[in-house]
Amino acid sequence: MASTGDLKEVSCKQSSWDSLLPDFPDGPLCEYRKRASFSWKEMAVFIDDEDLIQFRNRIFSAFENDPLFARYPGEDMTLEKYRELTFLRCKRLFEYEFLKLEDIMEKPLKIMVFINCLGMYDWSLGTKYLLNAQVFGGAIENTGSERHKEFVKQTSNMEIFGCFALTEVSHGSNTKGIRTTARYDPSTQKFIINTPDFEAAKFWVGNMGKNATHAVVYAQLYTPDGQCHGLHSFVVQIRDTKTLLPMPGVMVGDIGKKLGQNGLDNGFAVFHNVRIPKENVLNRTGDVTTEGVYISSFKDLKQRFGASLGALSSGRVMIIGMSVVNLKLALSIAIRFSATRRQFGPTEEEEIPVLEYQMQQWRLLPYLAATYALDHFSKSLFMNFIEFHIGLMMKDKSPRQAEIGREIHALSTGGKPLASWTAQQAAQECREACGGHGYLAMNRLGDIRNDNDPNCTYEGDNNVLLQQTSNYLLSWVNAKHQVPLAAYKWLVCYLLQESLLKLSHEKQSGSSDFEARNNSQVYYCRSLAIAFIEQTVLQRYHEHTHDPDTPTTLQPVLKHLSALYGLWSLSKHMAVLYQGGYVSGEQPGRFIQNAILELCSKLKDDAVALVDVISPPDFILNSPIGRADGELYKNLWTIVLQGSKVLERPSWFATFIERRLKMGKTYCYSPLTTGELKLRHAER
Amino acid sequence: MASTGDLKEVSCKQSSWDSLLPDFPDGPLCEYRKRASFSWKEMAVFIDDEDLIQFRNRIFSAFENDPLFARYPGEDMTLEKYRELTFLRCKRLFEYEFLKLEDIMEKPLKIMVFINCLGMYDWSLGTKYLLNAQVFGGAIENTGSERHKEFVKQTSNMEIFGCFALTEVSHGSNTKGIRTTARYDPSTQKFIINTPDFEAAKFWVGNMGKNATHAVVYAQLYTPDGQCHGLHSFVVQIRDTKTLLPMPGVMVGDIGKKLGQNGLDNGFAVFHNVRIPKENVLNRTGDVTTEGVYISSFKDLKQRFGASLGALSSGRVMIIGMSVVNLKLALSIAIRFSATRRQFGPTEEEEIPVLEYQMQQWRLLPYLAATYALDHFSKSLFMNFIEFHIGLMMKDKSPRQAEIGREIHALSTGGKPLASWTAQQAAQECREACGGHGYLAMNRLGDIRNDNDPNCTYEGDNNVLLQQTSNYLLSWVNAKHQVPLAAYKWLVCYLLQESLLKLSHEKQSGSSDFEARNNSQVYYCRSLAIAFIEQTVLQRYHEHTHDPDTPTTLQPVLKHLSALYGLWSLSKHMAVLYQGGYVSGEQPGRFIQNAILELCSKLKDDAVALVDVISPPDFILNSPIGRADGELYKNLWTIVLQGSKVLERPSWFATFIERRLKMGKTYCYSPLTTGELKLRHAER
Repeated sequence: MASTGDLKEVSCKQSSWDSLLPDFPDGPLCEYRKRASFSWKEMAVFIDDEDLIQFRNRIFSAFENDPLFARYPGEDMTLEKYRELTFLRCKRLFEYEFLKLEDIMEKPLKIMVFINCLGMYDWSLGTKYLLNAQVFGGAIENTGSERHKEFVKQTSNMEIFGCFALTEVSHGSNTKGIRTTARYDPSTQKFIINTPDFEAAKFWVGNMGKNATHAVVYAQLYTPDGQCHGLHSFVVQIRDTKTLLPMPGVMVGDIGKKLGQNGLDNGFAVFHNVRIPKENVLNRTGDVTTEGVYISSFKDLKQRFGASLGALSSGRVMIIGMSVVNLKLALSIAIRFSATRRQFGPTEEEEIPVLEYQMQQWRLLPYLAATYALDHFSKSLFMNFIEFHIGLMMKDKSPRQAEIGREIHALSTGGKPLASWTAQQAAQECREACGGHGYLAMNRLGDIRNDNDPNCTYEGDNNVLLQQTSNYLLSWVNAKHQVPLAAYKWLVCYLLQESLLKLSHEKQSGSSDFEARNNSQVYYCRSLAIAFIEQTVLQRYHEHTHDPDTPTTLQPVLKHLSALYGLWSLSKHMAVLYQGGYVSGEQPGRFIQNAILELCSKLKDDAVALVDVISPPDFILNSPIGRADGELYKNLWTIVLQGSKVLERPSWFATFIERRLKMGKTYCYSPLTTGELKLRHAER
Repeated sequence: MASTGDLKEVSCKQSSWDSLLPDFPDGPLCEYRKRASFSWKEMAVFIDDEDLIQFRNRIFSAFENDPLFARYPGEDMTLEKYRELTFLRCKRLFEYEFLKLEDIMEKPLKIMVFINCLGMYDWSLGTKYLLNAQVFGGAIENTGSERHKEFVKQTSNMEIFGCFALTEVSHGSNTKGIRTTARYDPSTQKFIINTPDFEAAKFWVGNMGKNATHAVVYAQLYTPDGQCHGLHSFVVQIRDTKTLLPMPGVMVGDIGKKLGQNGLDNGFAVFHNVRIPKENVLNRTGDVTTEGVYISSFKDLKQRFGASLGALSSGRVMIIGMSVVNLKLALSIAIRFSATRRQFGPTEEEEIPVLEYQMQQWRLLPYLAATYALDHFSKSLFMNFIEFHIGLMMKDKSPRQAEIGREIHALSTGGKPLASWTAQQAAQECREACGGHGYLAMNRLGDIRNDNDPNCTYEGDNNVLLQQTSNYLLSWVNAKHQVPLAAYKWLVCYLLQESLLKLSHEKQSGSSDFEARNNSQVYYCRSLAIAFIEQTVLQRYHEHTHDPDTPTTLQPVLKHLSALYGLWSLSKHMAVLYQGGYVSGEQPGRFIQNAILELCSKLKDDAVALVDVISPPDFILNSPIGRADGELYKNLWTIVLQGSKVLERPSWFATFIERRLKMGKTYCYSPLTTGELKLRHAER
């Protein structure tokens, strides 16, 4: 039993939570909130400690109080205006100093939380900031050396603004095929950066379109003897830092409108023999002497290539977190909508919230469970990653460190596809589950889906990345991992065995390695990679929810979430479980289906409280149908009536009456009743 | 053997096809075109006869030659401008007179082909036109009487412009819950249309936002005795036809930006006791006398309700066709891209088209097969529908006519979800399969996906509609349909039986009808409906491709398409086939997987020719990466460089240099190498 001291502590906590996590306004959602089996504040503090919540609150409240971050409901913003605003907001971040170095030292997770807060507000801002501060700056730190520190300092002071230029118009996935060249000229001690033709132009580079003054450019390094030493990165100034005009020989521009993230200026660049100082080669992996002799710390090209791309791997870890943000936003909107939208009912008079329908529960609640499980996975993988890189810095060369490295690579190459696809599908399901209102732009589900979409593509196409994950698993075989047969473990083992068989069968029938690998993806290695990453996410979440340190008050709902995520994910593999003989007969299939529906039904009264935990404040969520007060229609009308010229007749009204001299006639030809059709038929 | 006469005929045909279907320009796609197993022109003529191709060519060529239909590559058009352009284009259609009444009489399919041509150009135009000419006009024809002919005539002359106002802000699916009222006032012989509150405002109505002068408004009809006679439709003038200003008592406006179709002005309307002539009630199902006595041709409210909504059913048939258009557009773009985009290869020097990868084939070719199968289904269902409605007009009261009616209802309520979801998933897959270039707005895959999205929602939410399909199937039971056990037939029978068991089990455990129905959807009735409609589409396509009249030259490729569509669709039900005991062991699963991959591999050399058959001309397709010449990168650059101010520095460049007095500092905190982090760790 709790002592008086304990009780005091709890009540103290409770009141500190109240200022940290203010109560929600009264309204139609109260009914569900009352039914919740747990305290949403306790859950919030359990999931993100008070320090992180405070940190997030500070950012969100700064945005809400800053006119530069004002929302413009109903405004149809031009691309140019949107990009300007995003730049100005990004610049403002440099003034806020939300994230101090000591904060990062204390709690590295704050880096991720910070980026995700920006993304909750608007992913254009999040990626613009990330690409400059972390990707550009990080690439210099990680692949450069002491002599490049100045660039990092200038980035921190916003004297320069950076971008990361790897992809070319005709090469994305196959980075080795990149064709930009950097030839060393010993007479002037410069590198000459050149784009051989338009197909080799740098393309898709975020921040490059309008804004960046500097780029980390990947190019094939050539020494004066004509030899190519493979891909290296160079800091290239692309615009004047005062005028923002292009530097001599640089043709740089904007690739235009995208499906989403249009506040970010993606660009292209064509280099016409652009001369840069010799020192600008980022020389962690290789360098040239003044005379033009190549020196490298790596023995072979392949190893060097891998190391030079190492800077990319943190990106995938970030993208998993970004996808989780999109899950949180989409589910918050769809579940609050479903709890307040009423349609049909047991009697003609009474309509019930659509969340009461098993169908709606089944469409949404598994994604809510996935949000919780992937959120945990995302954070734990980030921490693994930090640990690993501390090891790297400490020059830890133990086999364990190497093994962790391989595992993180496999988890990030599998986790990015899983998280980004789950978010993609969830956003689509949420959009459909909100019916027409989900199709209205102001409700934000479209932006969430569109802004999430590139997560499936950049930092490696999802399907291509899954090959990395399965490669890792295929290498297990010699290690003879054998584990107790939970369904997922069986599934992974089965698919592993089948993939190996398929590969060896392909090779036996005379396929080259290249062909054998390509022909063993569908139904084999790809399924293996997906099953493995799902299993890992599930296992980590299962352990987390069953940990004795997890508050007993929260355990029941967390266990339901874990079970639902697991069974729902597993249910997509039922055919393979049957096919491989792990289960047979009608019972196993039915059991899983019934269990999923039962868990949905158990979770539906907790669903609103569960999204209260993960959703940002209304200003940040920015969706009338998803506001915390649950006044669905009132909120919708407020924003609808803010629309530009919403009640005005069209400016072009006169064109309606303007009659033509010769106006044709178009039939309102309904096939249903056209009299002539009937006659024609009768004649026959 | 062919006689000389036959040969002459074939060669004649060939040359007539050449003017109808001009050859494609030389280019990188030639290689695949040469490998095709069939003549794409022969296929085109087989699928759509010469007359339809000519019809389509005429429309497309008119658009290409009309400056009003010019494309604006790279332009970031405002909502207002886009709506104006769409209106002007719609108006222009009235001048072109593409579709004469005699054409429709001769070939009713031309109605569908016409709408689909508009959609291939731009769905905003397609739906704007459809909603006015067919939905508004059709509703008046179908639910009105002689006295309403004038409205139809005025619509045909574009003296008035119409919209169809059923949905309210708080009621979509549950149309019975609609709350707008129409009270008859015998003293003035007017109906008084009223919106009780904002939640009952008409909402989402296409054309209502800016443009429509008249609306078919659904409202609860009240007679002076205070009795409600249920939902009826009324023609209500909402704007002055000269000034486009709202009529007295009408508050009408624009609901704002949507996820797609932004050339169409969706709107809302609130009626404040708007008085309309008594004659404006569309009186096919019910009317009031001058004194205010209700008269009806139907006995009960329920039957009347069904009949009054009958006008809606043609919409679903049209939406199936619209979804097929989106499939054609998306697949044309993605397959041409995949045939010209090269990435990786068996050696470092040689890169191969991504279409050569089994993975890419598996991602795209089943959707290509689905496009062909659904295209056929869409047309055949349209023809069934025409037949049925001729029967209705002829007052055919035979049991066969009634049975066909029920079947068409089931096929359209099942076919709409299948077609719209297939198109949604295909557009997403195509977007991802084109990597970054698929995410670039100019390549159109985003618009296709966004414009297709409402197909999943309007005319009945997909999941709700599937209940109609399964209801039809559940009614089979008494009819004792038994069929030979092909896998799909077994599947439908099994799911039917399971659904019945589930329903009766639910009822036995005390659920009300409402609950029992709701709790039998997921895994039961919903799966049943999906399996049934897939089976029907497949069966019709199978019969079509195996018909002796199908040219023998085309049969092989058509049979491959049919088999691929069938196996791929079936493969999604493998778990149920195992669960129910239709198959067991490893072989059946493997067999289907291998067969799918083999068919993909067989079809990949035909894929380019297959999209040549279904894709519109370049001007209409409007996607640089999907152009028929296959000059992927050249076409992309042409359009990129058309972007507004593409090479200009940003207008807001000065804000970059503008320094603050106190400028904070943001760390380029890469977790990877931050020196301090390393030190901190070392200290521990």
